[in-house]
Amino acid sequence: MSIMEIDTVDIDLKENAVVIIDQTKLPNEVVLKKLRDPKEIWEAIYKLEVRGAPAIGVAAAFGIYVIAKDISDDYPTEDDFYKAFHEKKEYLNSSRPTAVNLSWALNRMEKCLDAHRGESRDIQIEALKNESIEIRDEDIRVCKKIGEYGVELVKDGDGVLTHCNAGKLATVRYGTATSPIYVAKERGINLRVYCDETRPLLQGARLTSFELYESGIDTTLLCDNMSAALMKTGKVNAVFVGCDRVAANGDTANKIGTSVVATVAKRYGVPVYIAAPTSTIDMNCASGDDIVIEQRDGKEVTDMWYEKPMAPAGVKVFNPAFDVTDHELIAGIVTEYGIAKAPYTKSLKEIFEKKEANSI
Amino acid sequence: MSIMEIDTVDIDLKENAVVIIDQTKLPNEVVLKKLRDPKEIWEAIYKLEVRGAPAIGVAAAFGIYVIAKDISDDYPTEDDFYKAFHEKKEYLNSSRPTAVNLSWALNRMEKCLDAHRGESRDIQIEALKNESIEIRDEDIRVCKKIGEYGVELVKDGDGVLTHCNAGKLATVRYGTATSPIYVAKERGINLRVYCDETRPLLQGARLTSFELYESGIDTTLLCDNMSAALMKTGKVNAVFVGCDRVAANGDTANKIGTSVVATVAKRYGVPVYIAAPTSTIDMNCASGDDIVIEQRDGKEVTDMWYEKPMAPAGVKVFNPAFDVTDHELIAGIVTEYGIAKAPYTKSLKEIFEKKEANSI
Repeated sequence: MSIMEIDTVDIDLKENAVVIIDQTKLPNEVVLKKLRDPKEIWEAIYKLEVRGAPAIGVAAAFGIYVIAKDISDDYPTEDDFYKAFHEKKEYLNSSRPTAVNLSWALNRMEKCLDAHRGESRDIQIEALKNESIEIRDEDIRVCKKIGEYGVELVKDGDGVLTHCNAGKLATVRYGTATSPIYVAKERGINLRVYCDETRPLLQGARLTSFELYESGIDTTLLCDNMSAALMKTGKVNAVFVGCDRVAANGDTANKIGTSVVATVAKRYGVPVYIAAPTSTIDMNCASGDDIVIEQRDGKEVTDMWYEKPMAPAGVKVFNPAFDVTDHELIAGIVTEYGIAKAPYTKSLKEIFEKKEANSI
Repeated sequence: MSIMEIDTVDIDLKENAVVIIDQTKLPNEVVLKKLRDPKEIWEAIYKLEVRGAPAIGVAAAFGIYVIAKDISDDYPTEDDFYKAFHEKKEYLNSSRPTAVNLSWALNRMEKCLDAHRGESRDIQIEALKNESIEIRDEDIRVCKKIGEYGVELVKDGDGVLTHCNAGKLATVRYGTATSPIYVAKERGINLRVYCDETRPLLQGARLTSFELYESGIDTTLLCDNMSAALMKTGKVNAVFVGCDRVAANGDTANKIGTSVVATVAKRYGVPVYIAAPTSTIDMNCASGDDIVIEQRDGKEVTDMWYEKPMAPAGVKVFNPAFDVTDHELIAGIVTEYGIAKAPYTKSLKEIFEKKEANSI
């Protein structure tokens, strides 16, 4: 079974279950997991069996629908049902408290239910089902649009470098940074793709190189410190990366190492493109200086993956989860409403005007 | 037993043995290993129990002396002894064929023996002993001198970043890139030191952070992709790295990732210094374009250190052992005869003139 034929998150309506690719088993095994009860869904998110902001949002939307349908008969009165729904929603929301898409999707599901107060239970459940499917479909449409705009930035034979996993496995299909690559493949445009392994969690090795290689794309893995040696050869024509948050001036927070790649790319004249659904662009954040960077446990660097520690016990570790890439290192921000270019303060505003005028 | 009280390579004259710190056991155990017969010495070099070009050279010099003394009685005639010596020397030389210091040290030992043709066996063995000790002492003097020049480039409270291991563990004492740090400590100058972990072989984590931390230096480990996030904080005042080969124009081949660090440092205005014994400066090599970069087995990236592979079987891997840092990214080249600054074509020539006039 090819990874490309499976959505990262799906719903089995007959069995009333959320279906995910268990990402903790990758790249060695492709295991599909069916999640039915609240604890299973909570744990799948908590244990990173499903990860990536968009994928988590969709899993939570499907999850709260599956739960609502399942418990419906236990709560014949509407007030009891709404209360139970709210409790289950808050429970799912506690699985990864800092994930914006998680609470966004769950709140959207609750609003949908609220909009159907007083209607029959069947209509309420049907509305929840449709809303969760719409959240999934929106994710696919947004990712695909990013790919359609992004593919215009490359040509047949180009080499593209990506960092971390802003891939299909972080969304439902296509991914964000990988979407131009998959759309290129659909159109018969051949790209060579280079994946940074992305220490310390190795998402580039475990997930990105896996999903691209499995999709039949010419894929080469490298360590994060090899970008200069690679770019010096002239084999990289563009860098595509995802983002966690884009500020109004174009400064972009993304997985640690992104700004290193961007700095090296600048030196070798390679354009850096950020694949950014408008949901990640925060116009209330003026610049990267306003973005707080999470510091994570040093054991991710010294102990994780290894039988014995790789550094002396007690040594200090600097382990920021993200870095901020200055907007001047960025050649373009690819959204589902088009590509923003410098000056970003102006172009990102225009992207949002386009969004308000013409929702995807 | 503190690592600072032990030389990386030493000789036990009473027991006629080479004594090394077994580096394959670091950072979890400090194990001293005594090497007596040719196979033990060969394997210690082959298995990287002793590594780092200068340390290998000293281990080989001590090794061939230990062997010569040991086999002396088996070969009463001079011709037989010289022939046996040559065979053992060639055997040791086969342990790591590309290591320049290995053949350099062994050839120097054979020349020393040749210079004593016709003299008594006792005098020959004594000459070999003294020559091997002189090779060791020279290494210590060269490293210490680099530290004495390098320490002038930092001041109390500075932060210094280093990449890979050009440390004490790659030499006998002091190291090259670490020598300014150890000399600073001897002089009561406190530095904060940041160690890149240095994928894929993790020498920075396993060796550099270990030897610095054990020496009581304020040591922080980071992944190779975190240099931009770190330098942005202003905490790094200088970068010190070693080198494998410096070209006549100052272009420097060093462990993969060095030119990434140098590119990032340039952006943040942090000076990059190369610690380079003159033995690594190749005036016959015009520029970095003439340096061939070794590509290594991809399994070092995907499989080494892990219980299960971290990437899909069959994916291509880009795994160069070194990269070349352009001379324009380098603020100075610190040798045992002083610091060369741009233009390097001129200043490196002057370093060699100084060397010819006044050998250390």
